[in-house]
Amino acid sequence: MPEARAGIVYLVGAGPGDPGLLTLRGAALLRGADVVVHDRLAPPELLGLAPEGAEVVDVGKRPGDASRSQEAVNKLLVERALQGKLVVRLKGGDPFVFGRGGEEALACAEAGVPFEVVPGVSAAIAAPAYAGVPVTQRAMAASFAVVTASRAGGINPDLKRVATAVDTLVLLMAAGRLREVCEALIAAGRPGDDPALVVQWAATPRQRSVSGSLAALPDLAADEGLGAPATLVVGAVASLAEQLRWFGNSPQI
Amino acid sequence: MPEARAGIVYLVGAGPGDPGLLTLRGAALLRGADVVVHDRLAPPELLGLAPEGAEVVDVGKRPGDASRSQEAVNKLLVERALQGKLVVRLKGGDPFVFGRGGEEALACAEAGVPFEVVPGVSAAIAAPAYAGVPVTQRAMAASFAVVTASRAGGINPDLKRVATAVDTLVLLMAAGRLREVCEALIAAGRPGDDPALVVQWAATPRQRSVSGSLAALPDLAADEGLGAPATLVVGAVASLAEQLRWFGNSPQI
Repeated sequence: MPEARAGIVYLVGAGPGDPGLLTLRGAALLRGADVVVHDRLAPPELLGLAPEGAEVVDVGKRPGDASRSQEAVNKLLVERALQGKLVVRLKGGDPFVFGRGGEEALACAEAGVPFEVVPGVSAAIAAPAYAGVPVTQRAMAASFAVVTASRAGGINPDLKRVATAVDTLVLLMAAGRLREVCEALIAAGRPGDDPALVVQWAATPRQRSVSGSLAALPDLAADEGLGAPATLVVGAVASLAEQLRWFGNSPQI
Repeated sequence: MPEARAGIVYLVGAGPGDPGLLTLRGAALLRGADVVVHDRLAPPELLGLAPEGAEVVDVGKRPGDASRSQEAVNKLLVERALQGKLVVRLKGGDPFVFGRGGEEALACAEAGVPFEVVPGVSAAIAAPAYAGVPVTQRAMAASFAVVTASRAGGINPDLKRVATAVDTLVLLMAAGRLREVCEALIAAGRPGDDPALVVQWAATPRQRSVSGSLAALPDLAADEGLGAPATLVVGAVASLAEQLRWFGNSPQI
């Protein structure tokens, strides 16, 4: 009689979009997966790494059913692991940065299912980097904060306390309420002439970005028709994009 | 006559310590490198990926000569690229998070040398994750900030304005001044009973962590003899480590 194999859930960060930004460990786990559970933020090219017989489940959330599906995802991960499966939960960016990976890890812990976290390249840092903006820079920025632009269907109320607390602000999911967000930051004391940049589809061939002062950015982005998904960066470092723009400039190997 | 090949500098993030957290693209570039320039924060195992004939230069900074060596590093990267070499600048964590990658990118831009950024898994996010702490968590933490604990030979004066501005605080290079840092955060309004955790040698076999309230943590860490390199996390999410501790618990593949 074959020995029962213990199942396990790996919460794997897929990185911000460029499939080359998956980690070596993430790739090895995908190649050995019995089950891959992914959503629409994970680069689709990566699913090809899974073995042919693997079960691949798309749990991409649609607007309006977020909480119901999160419970369903937790249940799916736990059930498959209890069946002895090696489960890879592939998440865009890093699983512990606005990825609800913590909730999935808790579900595993509560069910007694072993799990591991395989951190990924976070879009919060890589989206600015792909647009030529380092979130820190000597003599320019020695702190950064990451927040979502929206929360509970409105503008994130936390923007007020964070607006002037750090040198560099990174705001995720910024496209839908860009004007409100920029105005809220200025109202909270962030200078309207602070450099700012918004990047859409970062780390993908579709990447585009627009930069300007915090006050002018909403009009500039609207003129360019910049939409979701987008990341907003505010602070002196945003002015470096002009010199440090590299994406699409150089030969790819 | 062979065509002259244009040189290029790749600023590659090596991740937080676990060599499996290098990206696929970082590994491919290392395998094709003519020159690898690394410091002591990059996992030494990764140097084995470079081809046999590659020039490997250790530019690890020693205390006291940081600024002189940064200039020398910039010069080395530019010189080798101008010789037509494919240069990989391998940096611990992510090159644009306190890695001075921005300065190296500027040096390339100013010299007309093509460069690319290959983001890595930042220790700022992965060190907490390896200790079982997600920097964000629904209903617990919807914002985080990253700062260095020290600056210019003293405690970072920015701690005051960031102390209460975000849900989760991540403080890098926290070991040397842990007591001062915790006291400064409490003086700036962060509750002394806020959960906190300090992790040393995160994402390596030597990883250790200590958790407790922000007020109690310095004594607890001193009792355990926790030293550098260490990362401090403050906020409700630090309390999750008890349930979410996974590193070393599960089978490795």
